[in-house]
Amino acid sequence: MRFLGIDPGSRKAGYGVIEVKGRKINYIDSGVLVYDKVNNFIDRLGLIYNSCVELSEKYEPHEVAFESLIYVKSIPSLAKLSQARGAMIAGFMGTHQGKVFEYSPNLIKNSVTGHGHTGKEGVEKSLKMIFGGGIEFKRHDESDALAIAVCHSMLRGMPVSNKGHAGARKGSTLKQAFKHLEK
Amino acid sequence: MRFLGIDPGSRKAGYGVIEVKGRKINYIDSGVLVYDKVNNFIDRLGLIYNSCVELSEKYEPHEVAFESLIYVKSIPSLAKLSQARGAMIAGFMGTHQGKVFEYSPNLIKNSVTGHGHTGKEGVEKSLKMIFGGGIEFKRHDESDALAIAVCHSMLRGMPVSNKGHAGARKGSTLKQAFKHLEK
Repeated sequence: MRFLGIDPGSRKAGYGVIEVKGRKINYIDSGVLVYDKVNNFIDRLGLIYNSCVELSEKYEPHEVAFESLIYVKSIPSLAKLSQARGAMIAGFMGTHQGKVFEYSPNLIKNSVTGHGHTGKEGVEKSLKMIFGGGIEFKRHDESDALAIAVCHSMLRGMPVSNKGHAGARKGSTLKQAFKHLEK
Repeated sequence: MRFLGIDPGSRKAGYGVIEVKGRKINYIDSGVLVYDKVNNFIDRLGLIYNSCVELSEKYEPHEVAFESLIYVKSIPSLAKLSQARGAMIAGFMGTHQGKVFEYSPNLIKNSVTGHGHTGKEGVEKSLKMIFGGGIEFKRHDESDALAIAVCHSMLRGMPVSNKGHAGARKGSTLKQAFKHLEK
């Protein structure tokens, strides 16, 4: 199955695509979408929406996972980020209704590294261990998005509470989770 | 030309459709969309997005106007409202790219009533004077949306600053604006 992870943003957004076959997890692609060249915010929402429709057409993921919304401190920034996130999720609603999921940042980091409070570098290091060292990340948005896809591949089907914390074992790592898939 | 006005919301949203032919402005339809029966917020964003795609197909507006985002005090409410607004605008991006506009609440009230600080009842009274007394509004979301469509019909083509305040004459009323159309 193919999974697309999205780290949403109103100026830049990351995406990561992985494929899981049996016990094997493969890197397909990842990158950063740049929106901030368009100043008019309604036009930018159009660009943001279209970019997600295009990701869906290009990679044909079975399921899509987003990072849950972070309440950034600046109110105007939160308003822009939230509108962008709404437009991004909408971009998958023509094709993936019922197949879009969200996970909290701590749960994502915990799934990939085994620690919920690891830094961005820790996440990138773990991803390189999972997929091999050949991947170079242009920005943290890109590695974050890939981590979201990995988190989804581990936790899909597991009950997630309203707060976005899955009912999975605390501190469960990728290795432990794929044990489950191997059975 | 046909214009659709939208008063966005994450639980309920208003819509109003008008048609302008020469110097005449006609009421076509208005109503309230109800979203809060769906608890899962990502699924609700899907419903919100679909409802806007359907409005577009049903009424075939030439242009769409939104109320600009109001920074409500509660952070979780602002985050939900903003995501809903992003998904609603996205619902018109497949068909109306470059044809979606936004106006501030004060500008909308000012256009319809001549005063930027009128209450909801003042707006409804003015709308009934414009379209005839037969219209009954179920909720203020509905009358607000109709006022947004009327505001757009008056101000379209006029320069609007980044803050959403049109370069139109302060205190300009519908009568004054339609004088401009009559020429």
